[in-house]
Amino acid sequence: MSPSDSGLFISIEGGEGAGKSTVIAALSDLLSADGREVVLTREPGGTPEGEAIRAVLLDPGNHVVPEAELLLMFAARAQLVRRLIRPALARGAAVVADRFTDASYAYQGGGRGLEMGRIAELERWAAGIRPDLTFLLDVGVAQGLARARSRGGEPDRIEREREDFFERVRAVYLARAAAEPARFRVIDASQPADAVQSAVRAALTEWLRSR
Amino acid sequence: MSPSDSGLFISIEGGEGAGKSTVIAALSDLLSADGREVVLTREPGGTPEGEAIRAVLLDPGNHVVPEAELLLMFAARAQLVRRLIRPALARGAAVVADRFTDASYAYQGGGRGLEMGRIAELERWAAGIRPDLTFLLDVGVAQGLARARSRGGEPDRIEREREDFFERVRAVYLARAAAEPARFRVIDASQPADAVQSAVRAALTEWLRSR
Repeated sequence: MSPSDSGLFISIEGGEGAGKSTVIAALSDLLSADGREVVLTREPGGTPEGEAIRAVLLDPGNHVVPEAELLLMFAARAQLVRRLIRPALARGAAVVADRFTDASYAYQGGGRGLEMGRIAELERWAAGIRPDLTFLLDVGVAQGLARARSRGGEPDRIEREREDFFERVRAVYLARAAAEPARFRVIDASQPADAVQSAVRAALTEWLRSR
Repeated sequence: MSPSDSGLFISIEGGEGAGKSTVIAALSDLLSADGREVVLTREPGGTPEGEAIRAVLLDPGNHVVPEAELLLMFAARAQLVRRLIRPALARGAAVVADRFTDASYAYQGGGRGLEMGRIAELERWAAGIRPDLTFLLDVGVAQGLARARSRGGEPDRIEREREDFFERVRAVYLARAAAEPARFRVIDASQPADAVQSAVRAALTEWLRSR
């Protein structure tokens, strides 16, 4: 994986109802206050082509086979890296990514059961970059799903999966965090939103200081 | 690659203006007359999800990076194989495919310069099947492009490429045909449509007889 040059590449990962959006807003404020240009991205999506791919992936009427799901995720990511993330990092911006490749290991590897080696292969050439810092917002599956459902709205194709799917997703996220402690900060997202934000702010401040 | 069971899997390849459509109609007639169920597919596309992917790929307003182009092609193909081609072959149908994986080697490998090994890797796990018989309709680039343009209509994102792109596409197609003579039938598509159709019919009849 290539380094992120002069910029900062930070990803936020977590299952359904983990509270990613509020954490991203807090991170964005903190990095802006630090004098950084902040670029927010989301996956799948983040470019016009990626958003069109997102629509294919999340439409509950579609029957996307697991292999196609993985390839579409990486197609959107290849586009995002080359059109948005790499140029932003090259000019010194902080990129705050609402999910990145860890999500493919968790959802398509853990959730769908696709071979991790294939995902690693795609990561190398289609993404080619890994975040400098990753926040994993960890919450029990039942609590996360209850939160996500209380937001209302129609669940998308992936949100419609069963609990055991999300248990597998969570297990892979936690295993990846354990394997890469220097990159990951696991945040207990079962806490109230204020406490989660404080924990994220503290971790980011300490990380920025230590660089 | 897995064999095509009791069905027949026939692909038609060729550059712009090679006359694939009329050949596909002729093949379809011949196979139907032989008492076969005939299933026609096109790439990219052929399933509802694949057609949505096709729209992303061919929209002249999109700026699709080569890696994303390759992944989108294989996403549509993974979907097509599992939802349509394999079930059709399993029930003994003849599948007539307007392009298949050879087109990725030619367009994304030859045209875009992506590494052939990556395409071979994707072929193995995302497609997992290879045609029993492939017709390569070969025509010089200038003649093919002139024909395609005379059809009118707005060229799509890939049709807008320059001549050297299509020269590389053609070279890869011819190299693949030379490397796999048992599977490929190269048809001189610079001939009038009638002569092309006769050549294709004769080759198919001879192939069916020899099976």
